Amino acid sequence: MRAVEIRGAFGLDRLRVGERPDPKPGPGEVVVRLRAASLNYRDLLMVRGHYNPRQPLPLIPGSDGAGEVQAIGSGVTRVAVGDRVCPIFAQRWLGGEPDPRRLRSTLGGPLNGTFAEQIVVSEEGLVAIPSYLSDLEAACLPCAAVTAYNALVTEGGLTAGQTVLLQGTGGVSMFALQLAQALGARAIVTSSQDTKLEHASQLGAWAVLNYDQEPQWGQRVKKLTGGRGVDLVVEVGGGGTLAQSLAAVRVGGRIAMIGVLSGATSELALTSVLMRRVRLQGIMVGSRDSFEALNRLLEVHQIRPVIDRTYPLDEARAALEWMASGSHFGKIGLTI
Amino acid sequence: MRAVEIRGAFGLDRLRVGERPDPKPGPGEVVVRLRAASLNYRDLLMVRGHYNPRQPLPLIPGSDGAGEVQAIGSGVTRVAVGDRVCPIFAQRWLGGEPDPRRLRSTLGGPLNGTFAEQIVVSEEGLVAIPSYLSDLEAACLPCAAVTAYNALVTEGGLTAGQTVLLQGTGGVSMFALQLAQALGARAIVTSSQDTKLEHASQLGAWAVLNYDQEPQWGQRVKKLTGGRGVDLVVEVGGGGTLAQSLAAVRVGGRIAMIGVLSGATSELALTSVLMRRVRLQGIMVGSRDSFEALNRLLEVHQIRPVIDRTYPLDEARAALEWMASGSHFGKIGLTI
Amino acid sequence: MRAVEIRGAFGLDRLRVGERPDPKPGPGEVVVRLRAASLNYRDLLMVRGHYNPRQPLPLIPGSDGAGEVQAIGSGVTRVAVGDRVCPIFAQRWLGGEPDPRRLRSTLGGPLNGTFAEQIVVSEEGLVAIPSYLSDLEAACLPCAAVTAYNALVTEGGLTAGQTVLLQGTGGVSMFALQLAQALGARAIVTSSQDTKLEHASQLGAWAVLNYDQEPQWGQRVKKLTGGRGVDLVVEVGGGGTLAQSLAAVRVGGRIAMIGVLSGATSELALTSVLMRRVRLQGIMVGSRDSFEALNRLLEVHQIRPVIDRTYPLDEARAALEWMASGSHFGKIGLTI
Amino acid sequence: MRAVEIRGAFGLDRLRVGERPDPKPGPGEVVVRLRAASLNYRDLLMVRGHYNPRQPLPLIPGSDGAGEVQAIGSGVTRVAVGDRVCPIFAQRWLGGEPDPRRLRSTLGGPLNGTFAEQIVVSEEGLVAIPSYLSDLEAACLPCAAVTAYNALVTEGGLTAGQTVLLQGTGGVSMFALQLAQALGARAIVTSSQDTKLEHASQLGAWAVLNYDQEPQWGQRVKKLTGGRGVDLVVEVGGGGTLAQSLAAVRVGGRIAMIGVLSGATSELALTSVLMRRVRLQGIMVGSRDSFEALNRLLEVHQIRPVIDRTYPLDEARAALEWMASGSHFGKIGLTI
Repeated sequence: MRAVEIRGAFGLDRLRVGERPDPKPGPGEVVVRLRAASLNYRDLLMVRGHYNPRQPLPLIPGSDGAGEVQAIGSGVTRVAVGDRVCPIFAQRWLGGEPDPRRLRSTLGGPLNGTFAEQIVVSEEGLVAIPSYLSDLEAACLPCAAVTAYNALVTEGGLTAGQTVLLQGTGGVSMFALQLAQALGARAIVTSSQDTKLEHASQLGAWAVLNYDQEPQWGQRVKKLTGGRGVDLVVEVGGGGTLAQSLAAVRVGGRIAMIGVLSGATSELALTSVLMRRVRLQGIMVGSRDSFEALNRLLEVHQIRPVIDRTYPLDEARAALEWMASGSHFGKIGLTI
Repeated sequence: MRAVEIRGAFGLDRLRVGERPDPKPGPGEVVVRLRAASLNYRDLLMVRGHYNPRQPLPLIPGSDGAGEVQAIGSGVTRVAVGDRVCPIFAQRWLGGEPDPRRLRSTLGGPLNGTFAEQIVVSEEGLVAIPSYLSDLEAACLPCAAVTAYNALVTEGGLTAGQTVLLQGTGGVSMFALQLAQALGARAIVTSSQDTKLEHASQLGAWAVLNYDQEPQWGQRVKKLTGGRGVDLVVEVGGGGTLAQSLAAVRVGGRIAMIGVLSGATSELALTSVLMRRVRLQGIMVGSRDSFEALNRLLEVHQIRPVIDRTYPLDEARAALEWMASGSHFGKIGLTI
Repeated sequence: MRAVEIRGAFGLDRLRVGERPDPKPGPGEVVVRLRAASLNYRDLLMVRGHYNPRQPLPLIPGSDGAGEVQAIGSGVTRVAVGDRVCPIFAQRWLGGEPDPRRLRSTLGGPLNGTFAEQIVVSEEGLVAIPSYLSDLEAACLPCAAVTAYNALVTEGGLTAGQTVLLQGTGGVSMFALQLAQALGARAIVTSSQDTKLEHASQLGAWAVLNYDQEPQWGQRVKKLTGGRGVDLVVEVGGGGTLAQSLAAVRVGGRIAMIGVLSGATSELALTSVLMRRVRLQGIMVGSRDSFEALNRLLEVHQIRPVIDRTYPLDEARAALEWMASGSHFGKIGLTI
Repeated sequence: MRAVEIRGAFGLDRLRVGERPDPKPGPGEVVVRLRAASLNYRDLLMVRGHYNPRQPLPLIPGSDGAGEVQAIGSGVTRVAVGDRVCPIFAQRWLGGEPDPRRLRSTLGGPLNGTFAEQIVVSEEGLVAIPSYLSDLEAACLPCAAVTAYNALVTEGGLTAGQTVLLQGTGGVSMFALQLAQALGARAIVTSSQDTKLEHASQLGAWAVLNYDQEPQWGQRVKKLTGGRGVDLVVEVGGGGTLAQSLAAVRVGGRIAMIGVLSGATSELALTSVLMRRVRLQGIMVGSRDSFEALNRLLEVHQIRPVIDRTYPLDEARAALEWMASGSHFGKIGLTI
């Protein structure tokens, strides 16, 4: 099978497309013929060696993928050949709380990932694809959509009538925008580009704001919500945005900590956290149970991922460079 | 009645003991003859003008007190003359989540507080004192013990078999030490003074450690817990301790943000929060419902507050200076 | 002021409209000029003496009402004259969990209720009316809509992508139908009358079924949900329906116990409850905090109550008889 | 290997001890050399054919066991040969919520169980045994102790200062008695035999009562708790006890539905459930995550199971007959 590999050393320029032996399913295992993958910022960090410099190489990158069951090992009952499935990101995290063993079972490092024609996983490490979604659309779900679901629902407790603040227009934020509407909540979207804000409005954002034009956007958000503040912030910026997120959130509100696009450390104003009883909750994608709950939601609401551009597998490097440019809106896909 | 007052301007040297007219209960109101009060770090900040520089003066400081019902207004049914009661800290926060109006109803600023012979409050703003406790002991509960209860139980979810890390040996931490044991959990206590650590051990700490001798105590805590990390940290240090707290807490663990003794801002390592799904939860004392749940716990376990020194009301300034010195272990009381 | 009263003895035929002295607000109290009220099944039980036969008489019935603040007592800050408000049903249940004292503070028994031109309550016992609602619409909220909100959200945890079963087409069920849609969930509605089912479909029910034609509707519901069962049942029937509700709910699902229209006791198949880890949760309207959360939801979604018929205050008896007939769809109103 | 089997037809008299081929571990699988097992009421129902009359035979019964890892298949990393382990009851329920597939993976039916010298399971279907426990003690945990843990902690939310009512002195109830004390809660134990009540008192019951002498024990429990009622009831009686449990539980309290010893159906007084906002929660043992949390609790508190009698494997039938007699106190063990 063909597969993208990080070989020898990290770096976008070390990415190669090569041949690997076709995998065979052992007992309880399943080989999936991948038809599509999608990119996450994590994949870019991984290829560059910034995610985990001690990751052994070679490695097939890619956290997200979708395809169909090509072969099953003995004893497999959860899926059948021909089923359309997504591998889950953390292969051992089926339900409940994460623990180190569950968190170490992720695709695209330490385990080989989805930028390949085939992948072999346990029968437990799969979810069925909602039938109305294409392979490419389904390949956008495992990290970004599950993360958005956990940020909003499992940990965020977002419900109808509430308001959520979303930062930027990347994959997680655009899923969060769609999920927020399905949940009956209002979403405020920030970006530094007016064209992206217009696009977010078309997708249903209740309000948008340009953080370049309004660097103190926390106060503006407060005004938009009648002085109350938002119930939830989905924090993807990290270092550069947390102070404004704290200003924007209501007394007793929550901040879902997801990304560190603008800095991996932040000055945190502790008195504001404790005097206003704010919760900061780290989010780390989610379990198979969360993914299946997400899929029920998507199906009921017939939600389709927002896809920016799609590249063929052989151009994975170009796809990652496009992500690195920050110009995308929504998810970047790979066809396999 | 006699009352301690901040008059004219903030500052420990502006604290005066003066006479005020005796309060009368309006309909639905209760006059409490206070017999004891206790100090919180908040009171020290308030007197110094660091808590809220815009607080109108004069103000009777004091967040915590205990006494007996001296007079009731018309329509009062929840208490009777002679009942032993504590005023609750946030007078309007009876149950549920806090909101700005509830959080603005606190004694010792903006409302007049407990460093006085009498106080008038709504009949709703009181809890009954467990009968086995003295007035002085009861006067230690409203802020520190309710805060510890919410940090451990309501927000912390601490349960039997788990481990909690407590910082220092002040009022909140020593209540937390006692509550942790009642909950069946193990407590690790930190301090810079070995005599205080010995004292904490005698009070039941499962392990203790001197953070001056071990500035990287986070790793040590991890070892103590078999590599797992603690389930909960009660963070009172703030800026100077949060990094070690993050190192000490387990994957999926919680940090209850209570105090900022060592700094009001902190560098926060965001990746550690999100990759390990840690929760930072601001804690702001608690509701009347929490206080009553705490009292049931205290009574079943016959827990008595750890009291350091007691001063007469007239020496409130000396008491606050003793607190400022940081030499105390547990609560500092006032007899009235 | 004019008021409906149960005088001398219970019974629909003992309902009289009489004159009472206008109430005056004491300190902390508010007089509301009621403009509308609405009926609940509880009011019918109360008038008939079936709700609490020991309730002292005379009593002004009526749990739900809406109007404007006419006068305020000293110290009132939460509302001002002219504000449009609803009295909350359990006057002392502001937030958190219910307790006996909170549950004994309900309007329309033991306290005088809303079938009157004026009512005097504590300033704490009110919520602001969303501005887009008429008085009559707002008067439908305090019991039925708050009950539906707690059944679905606070206790039911219903979220987008899930399915809820609603019994009948009374006030609670029709609010639940509207709320379920705002939450992004699917609602299945049962009734014995096809015209009501058609109406429910027009209001957005995902599926409907006639329980007269399909007495074993539990199995049918299971099929409708692909064999999974519904996530939540809002049980208003009680004795006559619980067995089917158990058949309809999924493994790990919930049944919100609200009403006993078809019987106050039920044979409960215990093995089905425990082997499938079902939760039965009694629901008792809700707190002021819940009412305010509901109002934010209603406003964001511009939801208007489903009102069946409206009677003038003087015809309260006719209104109650109409309710007793079971012919209504949604709420029955009174204009005052 | 030797194994107890239900052969040909159900019935205690059809239980045979026979020889079966030794199991071999496939990839990802583990063979455990069982050293002890314990009995649950479920096993008795299974052997008699009352649990699931359509269960295919032959079947090795037995839900609980303990032993050491004898052999591992390829790819196994979670355990090593020689590790002391317990198989978990529902082999596929590792964490999170139960679903039909997880609930169908239970030992002792439909899967072969623990009344045998060896068992083969997935490496995921095991937990480590706390080192201070003997094999026999560990063999008491998988059903009864995990059930008690979920009834009290996961679903019951029992915490320090609260009170729980426990019915009878069987395995689940005696674990619950020990766990309640570790949690800092008070336990009230019921039985029809005074000698058992004395024993329960020695084990730390806060109060005991003989339900034969006091058939209306609900009222008595209310008095014992100062009129408040208990926070939680662990309901093992079912049909014969639920009415008294409802009388004993406080407003807003919970009833954990575990067993049906005195009847599989019950008249349920619905108004009492809804007017007092009571929750009835079905409990179905629990997940591997729960088992591991339980083990941490047991180890910190050095709790040892209460074991009544122990039989050799060959006398499994006599052991089950002893259970059927209802004379036991705590768990009945098998040595293998």
